[in-house]
Amino acid sequence: MKMPWQSMLYGGDYNPEQWPREVWDEDMRLFDLAHINTATVGVFAWSRLQPAEDQWEFGWMDDLMSLLERRGKQVCLGTATAAVPPWMARQYPDVLRVDFEGRQRQFGMRHNFCPNSPSYRTFAPAIAGKLAQRYKDHPGLVLWHVSNEYGGECYCPRCAAAFRRWLQQRYGSLARLNEVWNTSFWSHVFYDWDEIVPPNMLSEHGNPHNPDQTAFQGLSLDYRRFMSDSLLECYKLERDVLKEHTPDIPVTTNFMEVYKPLDYFRWAPHLDIITWDSYPRAGTDPADTAFNHDLMRGLKDGQSFLLLEQTPSQTNWQAYNALKPPGGMILQSLQAVAHGSDAAMFFQLRRSQAGCEKFHGAVIDHVGHENTRVFAECQKLGQQLAGFGDALLGSELPAEAGVVFDWENWWALDYSSGPSNDIDYVTEVRRYHKGFYDHNIPVAVTSVDADWSQYKVLVAPLLYMVSAATAAKIRQFVADGGIFLTTYLGGVVDEHDRVTLKGYPGELRDVLGIWVEELNVLLPEDEVIFTVNNPSPALQGCHSGRIVYERVHSEGAEPVAAYNNGMFAGTPAVTRHAFGQGQAWYVATSVQPAFVNQWVRDAAATAGVEALGPKQPGVECTLRRSDKGAFLFVLNHNEFPVRVALDSGWSQDLVSGKTVEAEGFTLQARQAAVFSHR
Amino acid sequence: MKMPWQSMLYGGDYNPEQWPREVWDEDMRLFDLAHINTATVGVFAWSRLQPAEDQWEFGWMDDLMSLLERRGKQVCLGTATAAVPPWMARQYPDVLRVDFEGRQRQFGMRHNFCPNSPSYRTFAPAIAGKLAQRYKDHPGLVLWHVSNEYGGECYCPRCAAAFRRWLQQRYGSLARLNEVWNTSFWSHVFYDWDEIVPPNMLSEHGNPHNPDQTAFQGLSLDYRRFMSDSLLECYKLERDVLKEHTPDIPVTTNFMEVYKPLDYFRWAPHLDIITWDSYPRAGTDPADTAFNHDLMRGLKDGQSFLLLEQTPSQTNWQAYNALKPPGGMILQSLQAVAHGSDAAMFFQLRRSQAGCEKFHGAVIDHVGHENTRVFAECQKLGQQLAGFGDALLGSELPAEAGVVFDWENWWALDYSSGPSNDIDYVTEVRRYHKGFYDHNIPVAVTSVDADWSQYKVLVAPLLYMVSAATAAKIRQFVADGGIFLTTYLGGVVDEHDRVTLKGYPGELRDVLGIWVEELNVLLPEDEVIFTVNNPSPALQGCHSGRIVYERVHSEGAEPVAAYNNGMFAGTPAVTRHAFGQGQAWYVATSVQPAFVNQWVRDAAATAGVEALGPKQPGVECTLRRSDKGAFLFVLNHNEFPVRVALDSGWSQDLVSGKTVEAEGFTLQARQAAVFSHR
Amino acid sequence: MKMPWQSMLYGGDYNPEQWPREVWDEDMRLFDLAHINTATVGVFAWSRLQPAEDQWEFGWMDDLMSLLERRGKQVCLGTATAAVPPWMARQYPDVLRVDFEGRQRQFGMRHNFCPNSPSYRTFAPAIAGKLAQRYKDHPGLVLWHVSNEYGGECYCPRCAAAFRRWLQQRYGSLARLNEVWNTSFWSHVFYDWDEIVPPNMLSEHGNPHNPDQTAFQGLSLDYRRFMSDSLLECYKLERDVLKEHTPDIPVTTNFMEVYKPLDYFRWAPHLDIITWDSYPRAGTDPADTAFNHDLMRGLKDGQSFLLLEQTPSQTNWQAYNALKPPGGMILQSLQAVAHGSDAAMFFQLRRSQAGCEKFHGAVIDHVGHENTRVFAECQKLGQQLAGFGDALLGSELPAEAGVVFDWENWWALDYSSGPSNDIDYVTEVRRYHKGFYDHNIPVAVTSVDADWSQYKVLVAPLLYMVSAATAAKIRQFVADGGIFLTTYLGGVVDEHDRVTLKGYPGELRDVLGIWVEELNVLLPEDEVIFTVNNPSPALQGCHSGRIVYERVHSEGAEPVAAYNNGMFAGTPAVTRHAFGQGQAWYVATSVQPAFVNQWVRDAAATAGVEALGPKQPGVECTLRRSDKGAFLFVLNHNEFPVRVALDSGWSQDLVSGKTVEAEGFTLQARQAAVFSHR
Repeated sequence: MKMPWQSMLYGGDYNPEQWPREVWDEDMRLFDLAHINTATVGVFAWSRLQPAEDQWEFGWMDDLMSLLERRGKQVCLGTATAAVPPWMARQYPDVLRVDFEGRQRQFGMRHNFCPNSPSYRTFAPAIAGKLAQRYKDHPGLVLWHVSNEYGGECYCPRCAAAFRRWLQQRYGSLARLNEVWNTSFWSHVFYDWDEIVPPNMLSEHGNPHNPDQTAFQGLSLDYRRFMSDSLLECYKLERDVLKEHTPDIPVTTNFMEVYKPLDYFRWAPHLDIITWDSYPRAGTDPADTAFNHDLMRGLKDGQSFLLLEQTPSQTNWQAYNALKPPGGMILQSLQAVAHGSDAAMFFQLRRSQAGCEKFHGAVIDHVGHENTRVFAECQKLGQQLAGFGDALLGSELPAEAGVVFDWENWWALDYSSGPSNDIDYVTEVRRYHKGFYDHNIPVAVTSVDADWSQYKVLVAPLLYMVSAATAAKIRQFVADGGIFLTTYLGGVVDEHDRVTLKGYPGELRDVLGIWVEELNVLLPEDEVIFTVNNPSPALQGCHSGRIVYERVHSEGAEPVAAYNNGMFAGTPAVTRHAFGQGQAWYVATSVQPAFVNQWVRDAAATAGVEALGPKQPGVECTLRRSDKGAFLFVLNHNEFPVRVALDSGWSQDLVSGKTVEAEGFTLQARQAAVFSHR
Repeated sequence: MKMPWQSMLYGGDYNPEQWPREVWDEDMRLFDLAHINTATVGVFAWSRLQPAEDQWEFGWMDDLMSLLERRGKQVCLGTATAAVPPWMARQYPDVLRVDFEGRQRQFGMRHNFCPNSPSYRTFAPAIAGKLAQRYKDHPGLVLWHVSNEYGGECYCPRCAAAFRRWLQQRYGSLARLNEVWNTSFWSHVFYDWDEIVPPNMLSEHGNPHNPDQTAFQGLSLDYRRFMSDSLLECYKLERDVLKEHTPDIPVTTNFMEVYKPLDYFRWAPHLDIITWDSYPRAGTDPADTAFNHDLMRGLKDGQSFLLLEQTPSQTNWQAYNALKPPGGMILQSLQAVAHGSDAAMFFQLRRSQAGCEKFHGAVIDHVGHENTRVFAECQKLGQQLAGFGDALLGSELPAEAGVVFDWENWWALDYSSGPSNDIDYVTEVRRYHKGFYDHNIPVAVTSVDADWSQYKVLVAPLLYMVSAATAAKIRQFVADGGIFLTTYLGGVVDEHDRVTLKGYPGELRDVLGIWVEELNVLLPEDEVIFTVNNPSPALQGCHSGRIVYERVHSEGAEPVAAYNNGMFAGTPAVTRHAFGQGQAWYVATSVQPAFVNQWVRDAAATAGVEALGPKQPGVECTLRRSDKGAFLFVLNHNEFPVRVALDSGWSQDLVSGKTVEAEGFTLQARQAAVFSHR
Repeated sequence: MKMPWQSMLYGGDYNPEQWPREVWDEDMRLFDLAHINTATVGVFAWSRLQPAEDQWEFGWMDDLMSLLERRGKQVCLGTATAAVPPWMARQYPDVLRVDFEGRQRQFGMRHNFCPNSPSYRTFAPAIAGKLAQRYKDHPGLVLWHVSNEYGGECYCPRCAAAFRRWLQQRYGSLARLNEVWNTSFWSHVFYDWDEIVPPNMLSEHGNPHNPDQTAFQGLSLDYRRFMSDSLLECYKLERDVLKEHTPDIPVTTNFMEVYKPLDYFRWAPHLDIITWDSYPRAGTDPADTAFNHDLMRGLKDGQSFLLLEQTPSQTNWQAYNALKPPGGMILQSLQAVAHGSDAAMFFQLRRSQAGCEKFHGAVIDHVGHENTRVFAECQKLGQQLAGFGDALLGSELPAEAGVVFDWENWWALDYSSGPSNDIDYVTEVRRYHKGFYDHNIPVAVTSVDADWSQYKVLVAPLLYMVSAATAAKIRQFVADGGIFLTTYLGGVVDEHDRVTLKGYPGELRDVLGIWVEELNVLLPEDEVIFTVNNPSPALQGCHSGRIVYERVHSEGAEPVAAYNNGMFAGTPAVTRHAFGQGQAWYVATSVQPAFVNQWVRDAAATAGVEALGPKQPGVECTLRRSDKGAFLFVLNHNEFPVRVALDSGWSQDLVSGKTVEAEGFTLQARQAAVFSHR
C-alpha cells in the first residue's frame, strides 16, 4: 500500500502521560529544534485510557493529539495493548499467563497477556477500535502501532485447549499426529486429543540447564508454531478493527530482529510495513546489524521498512550499557537507511523519571534541556534526514545473492538432542551473510517460501529441515542455473522433524550429488583441517572446520576439498555438483570466515554477480534504487578515516553536500556518505 | 541502659537439649576450665519447650537454669522463636512462608515463619512471655536473645494484605502512590489497593539469572522496607512482652553484618545493645571485618556491642571450611574488642552430633574432652578476657572521620536496571573505609540519619539515593567546615527511586558545584585513566577508574584530576568544591585503593584528623576510651612478627602483661596487644 | 539360577512398533548378517499394547514374536512399564510424579511414574502378567526386562504417607526417630508422624545451587533409602507376577553404573542376573569403565552379568556426541566381556526416525542398509562373539583384592554440609581401584555387607559412614591377617549420619590405632606435601594431598609419612597399624595416583597378591575362569600398537585365531586378544 508520509520519519516513542502537562509544551519546542516530525504515542497507556472495564479517559489523549496536530507532527498511534491494566488482571485473571515452569503469573511487568485469553481477545480489539474511531480523522495519523514487541509463551489451560484445536486442524486425525510425532517412541500414543498437554518443564521438557531439551521435537515444534500463530491472531484481531475505521492507514507491530519465538515470515504478510527495534550491544559487528536489516527487509520481499526504535545513547537492560561513541548513533541510523529503512526513530523522546527504563537513554535527558551532546547529535541527524526529502522513500536494494533464513529450521535444530551443543544456526547463517557483506556484494535475506528468481547465488547454511516442496524449489533453482550452497546437517529432516530416510541429506541428495554416511563431533577446543584439492580460481589453501564434520560419499559431486586429519581423513570436506545448468555445493563442517570469503568471491565470479565497491575493511557500501534515482551509501565503521575511490558515476554526497573529487574522497571515522547518481 | 554484667562476656550458644543429662555436668567442668562465664540457651528449643499448643515442658530448662546458676554462669536466654515447631506448621499453616518463586513452603529448616502470620504473632510473644515470667528472677539472666538472625522474605496472601495496609499508611492515597512509583509507565496505574501484588518472580521480577531485576523499583523497594518492618514488628512484639516482666534486662537479637534484607539502622533503636555474628571466610581482609565491627558499632551511634557468635575453629556452610590458623581465633576476638565489643562468644559450646551443623566447630569437640588445640586456644582467650576485668566495658572509639552506609541506597542501586551490572555498593563503601583503616585513622560507620557533628571528614560513596533532607544535612555539614566526598551516581534519585530532575547529581548539585551530563560504562576488562592536575599535597600521579565514568561539568568546583582517555578525555574525573567553610569532593569513576589512600591522607591532613599509629602493612591500631581510661589496641594480622614503635604515653600490655620498652616492642605473627595509658 | 542361553547374547533394543511392517523383514535379514541372536523388545510399548484401561492390542506383538521365533532369535522381553501411556496419566493422575521443586508433573517424557501410586502398582504388574501369560511358551524367551533404568524421585502426598509408614517400620517410635535424626536441633521434634514431610526444595532443602544441601541429613538419607526401596517394590511386584508364569526365565532390570539414587546392592538379590547400560563419554579413562564393570559384577558377588546397552557409534544426549573411533566399540565390548559380561547388546538395532533419540546411533542407520562403517564393525563383533561359543558363559574373575563401594556412604557424604565442597566419593574410590587396575591385579568391587573372605587386601576409601556391624567386620578382617586401608573422614558417623562420639575415626579407632583430632580444608588451588619416612619397599618420596588433611595422633599405629607443610606439619599423613595378624592403614588426605600406585604395589607384595601381566600403560589384562577353562584377556587401549610378552601358559587367541609366539605378540591400536590356557 501507499505510505502516507512524504519524508523520512524521525522521532520516536513519546509517553507524555508520565509527565505534567507543562512539560509537553517544552517537548514540542525541543522536537522542533531536533527536526523531529513523528511521535509514537499511547503504546503503554491502557491503564490511563481505560481505568475500568466501562470507563474511558480520552481527555489527555485528545489534548496530546491536538497539540501534535498544532505543531505539525505526525503520529504513530499505539493501540496500548502490550501491557494489561491492573484492574483487568484482578477481575479477569485469564488474561495472565502460565509460564514455562507451569506457574500462574500474577500482575506485573509488560507483554503479560495470555494470547488465548478470551478476555484479552475481547478487550484488546475493543480499545483499538475506540482509538481508531476517535482519531481516524487526525491529519497527522500515519501509522498504527499494534501492541508492542509481541513475544513470550503461555501454557495455561486455555492455551492447552486451543493447541488441541490447532492440532486437529493441522493433522485432521490422531492417527496422523501419532505418525508424524512418532509417538510409538516412549509410549506416547495418544488416543484422545485431551491427552495432549503443552510441552513445558512439567511435561516434555525437564532440564533446567537446557530448557530447549524436549522428549518430543514434533510436539514442541508444533507448540512454537501454535504460539506464534496465537500471538499473530491477537495482532490480526486488532488489525481488522483498525482497518474498518482507517483502511488507508498502514498497520504494523514492531519486530526484534532474529527474535526466536515468532516466525516473522508468517507474520509479515499481515503487516503493511515492517518496523523493528535495533539495540546492538557495544562492539557488535556492523555486519550483524546489516544482517538484521537485510532480514527485516526480506520479510516482505525487499519492501522498505522502518527503524522504529533505537537508543540515541545507551540502553538500560544490558549487563554493560555503554554509550554509543560520538557519531555512532548517526552512523547506525544511516546504516539502517542504507539497508532500506525509511525512518530513524528512537526509544524514546524523553527519558522517564522512574521505573526500570529510567537509565535508558532518550533524546531529552533528565536534565530537561537541549544542551547535551546526545541532543546535539539527534539534532544533526534530524537535519541530515530532512535533507534527504522524499528521495529515498520506498526505494529498494537490488540483490542477486540471497541467504536463506528459516525460523522453523532454527527451532527444530535447537529442540533436537545432539549431535553437539555448539551447533548455532544464527551464527552459521550470519557467517555466510557476512561473506557477501565483506565484499560489498548486495545480498538479500530470504525465506524458503519466497520467490528466488532474482538470485544467481543462494546460500542456505545448516538447512536441516527441508520439506519436499523446499527440496523441489532448490532442485529447480540449481537446474535453472543457480549456484546453491548448504552445509553439514542439511536436509536431515522433514517439516515434522522426522528424519528423511534412505540417506542424508535426504531430499537434497540428488541435487547435491552426495551421500553423507555419518557425522563426528568436535570438542570446543578441537578442529578438523581440510585442503582445497580441486580449486576454482578463488579457492585455495588449508582451512579448518569446527563443531562437527561429516563423512561424505560422492554420488556425482566433485570433491573440492578433503580432510587432512580426523576419522574421515582423505574424504571430501567440500563438494560441488553440476546439476542442470547450475552448481550445488555442500560444506560438511562449520568453516571459518576465511573459507566463506573465498567461496563467496568464487561464486560471485562464476555467477557474474558484482560488488558495489572495493573490499575495504570496515567500509560498507549499499545501493538503494527507485524511480527517483539510485543512491550509493558508503559507511566508514572504522575508528579512523579512510580514503575511498568511487567510479565516476557518482556525484554529490547528500549528507555533507560535497561533491566527489576525481581521485576519490575521505570518510572520517564513523562517517557515512550517500551519493546520488551523476 | 546499664548493662548487667561486670566483665567481658565469654561463652556462647549452648544446646544441652541435644544431649543426655550426664553430659551437662561434664560441660560445666569444661566451661570452668575455659573461663566461660556466659551461655546462650534456648535459641532453637521451641519444639522442646512447647510440644503442643496447650502443653509446656519447662522441666529440663528449669534443671539447666539451676545448673548454670549453681556454677555461677550468666545466661543469655533465647526466646526460642527462630524456628517453628512441626506441630505448629501442620495445625497453623499460615506460619509458613511463600517464597520468592511464589511457592508455599512446607515445614523444614529454620527462620521459617511468615512475619505477618497471625498465628506466629500470637505464639511467639506467648512463649517469650512464658519464659520471662518463669526465669525473670534467675540471678544469672543478663540478656534476652529474641529469635535468631531475623531474615528472609515472605510473599503469602497475608503479607500481600499487610503490604497494602502499609502502603496506605505510607502514601495515604493511590494518587500519591501512582505518582511516586510512576505507574503510567507500562500501564501500571492502580485504581484499587487490592490490585497491588507483592513483587516476586511471578509479578514484577522475572529473570532467574538476576532476581533483583524488577520492572518497578519503587514497588520492590517498598516491599523491602515493608518486609524489614514486618520482621521488626515480630521482634518488637516479643521485646514488649519481655520488658513487661524484666524491664532491667537488656533485649537484643543477633545481626549479621551487611545483611541485605534488613535495614539495621531502623532496627537498632529497638535493641538495647547490638549483638552480631561474625563468620569471615579464610583469607578475608581484616579491613573488611573491621568495617563490619564499625558498622555494628555505628548502628547505635558508637555504643559498644557484643560479638555474639563466631566459630572457634571452622564453619560448616562455606564451600571450603578451613580452620582458623593457630592464634587466628584469638586475634579475631581481640579485633572485635578493639572495635567496641564487650564480648567474645562462640557458636557453639558443644559440637552437635547430627544435623547440618555437625561439622561446625565448637569449644568442646565431638571427642568430648579438653585435650584439643581448639579448646586450648579457647582457654587462653578466656584467661585474657578475664584479665581485662571491667576496664573496657562500655568504652567508646572516638572518631573524627565517618563513612556513610545506607541500606535503602543499596537496595535501590541493586534494583535499578543499568547502567552496569558491576556496580557494587558494599565494595565501594568498604574501599573508602579501608582508606582510613590502612592509615590507622579512627573511623566510624554512620547513617544518613545520624548526628554527624563529631566528624570532620565524611565519605558517602555511591550515595545514589538522596532525599531532600539528606541533601540539606550534607549541605550544612560542608557549610560548617566539613570535608565531604561522594562518587559517581551520587544524588541521582530521591527516596522513591525517582530521578531528581534538572541535572545530576540532583539535590547535591549546588554543594558539589558540578553538573554531570552523562555516564559511560566500561567492560570488566577496561579502565579509564586520569591524572591529578591540581594536586593537594597528598594527591599526585596517574590513576585508573573502572565500571563507569562520567562527564562532569564544573559549576564552581575545581577540577582536581582529568581523564587521559575515553570518551570524556580532558574533562574532570575528580572535583573539589569550596562551599561555605568546607570542601565537597566528587569522584566520577570507581577508583582504585591507591587513589583512595592518597585522598584519605590529604583529607585528614587538611582537616587535622590524626592517625593512632604509623601506617604499617597488616598492623591495625584502635583506641577505646571511657571514664576508666584509654586503651590502645595493636593487632598484627601478618603471618610474621613485626616491630612496632609507640609514643611514650602507653605502658603495660593487658594481654601479655609486659611493659613497652623504650625502643618499641615486637608483636609475633597474629598477636595482639592492648596498652593502657601510662 | 541357570541361564537359558548357550552363547554370548548379541543384539539389543528393537522397537519395530515405530516402523511399518515391511521394515521388519529387512531387519531380520540385517540381523542375520550381523550375527545378532537376541532382540530386546517391548520396553516402551505400553501405549501400543494397552490403548485403554480395558483394551489390549497384542496382535502386532504376536506377529513380532512369531517372526523372531521363525528367524531363530532369542527375546529379551520388556514389561513395557517404564513410561506410562497418556490415557493413564489423564485418567489416573496419581501415576504422575511431584518433583523435587514440589511441582505436580504433567504427562511427558519417560520414567514418569510415581512409585507409590496405587494405580501404577496395579497397572504395571497387570501388563507384566498379561505378557507373561501370553508369551511364556515362546521358545526364544530368555530374559525378562522389567521396566527400564529405574530412577528419579517423587514427593507427592502418597509418597509422603508411604514414607511415614516406612519410618514407623524402621524406627518403631517417634522417640527413636527424634533421637537418631537429632531433632532437638532447629526445633524439629516430631510429636505426630503426620508432621513429617518429604525433604525437598520446599522443606529441608533450599539451595538452588546445591540441591543436596539439607538441614537434616538423617531425614534426607532416609528418604533416599525409602525412595530406592519404593522403586524396588515396583520391580518386585512385576518380578513376582512374572515368576508365577515363567519360574525358569531369569528376571532383571537394567542398571546404570554408579547411578546415585538407587542402592543397587539392595536391589541385586532380587535380580536373577545383573544387566547394565554403558555409555562412556569420549575420552573416558578405560579404568573408569573397568570400575563400572567390576561394580556391576560385584553386585551379585562376582556372578557374570550382561552388558545390555551400549551405542555402536554415538549417543545423542551428551553435550558432544563424538563417534567411537574405528575399533573402539569392539574394544569396549570385549572389555565388558573381559570383566564378566556374557553379552554385548546395543541400544539400539534400528535408529528411530523422530523423537529425542533420533540422533542416537544404531546398528542399522537411517539409511537403512548394511553398507556403513558402523554396521561393518557390528558384523565383525558378532562374528567374534559367536566364535567364543559357550566357553566364557558364567565364568568368574577370581580376585584377592577388593575395593568397597557403598551407596549410603555416598549419599551421607553428599548430604553433609561441610567440610569441603570438593569431597567426591566416587572419584576417591575410582582412584584406589585404578591403582589395582594399572598393575593388572585382579580386583573386585564389594559392599560393606558382602563376604570378604576371598580378599587379602581391602580398600575402603572415604568410608565415612560405618555402622557397628561394619566396624566389627573390618576389625575381624584385619585381625585375620588382611591388609585394610581407609582414608580421611573414615568412621566419622554411624548409619544415621550421627557422629560416633569420643574421637574420630569412631568405631575404627582401635583397629586403625589412631585418633584424628581435627581436619583442615584446602582451597582447590592448594595442596599439602607429605614425605614417606618409614618406607615399606614400595613406598618412598614426596607426595601431595588435596581437598582436606587431618591431624592424626598415633595410638599404636606407626606413622608412615608426615606432612612437610600446613597447619599439621610434622604430624602423620599416613599410618599403618599392626592389628592381630593384619595391617590397618589410614591415609589422612586425598592423595594422588602416584601414591596410590605405590601403596597398591606394596600391599600386594606384602599380601602375596599377584598381577596377571606386566604393568604397561594402556594395556589391560583380566582373567575369566570356569570349569570350561581359563581365559586371559589382553586389551590394548592405546592409539598405537604394543608388544606384549605372556608367560608360556597361554596359547591361542580366540579373537584372531592366532597362536602366541615365543617372544610375545603384537596388539594393534585398540585391539584385544583372548587367550585360552594351553
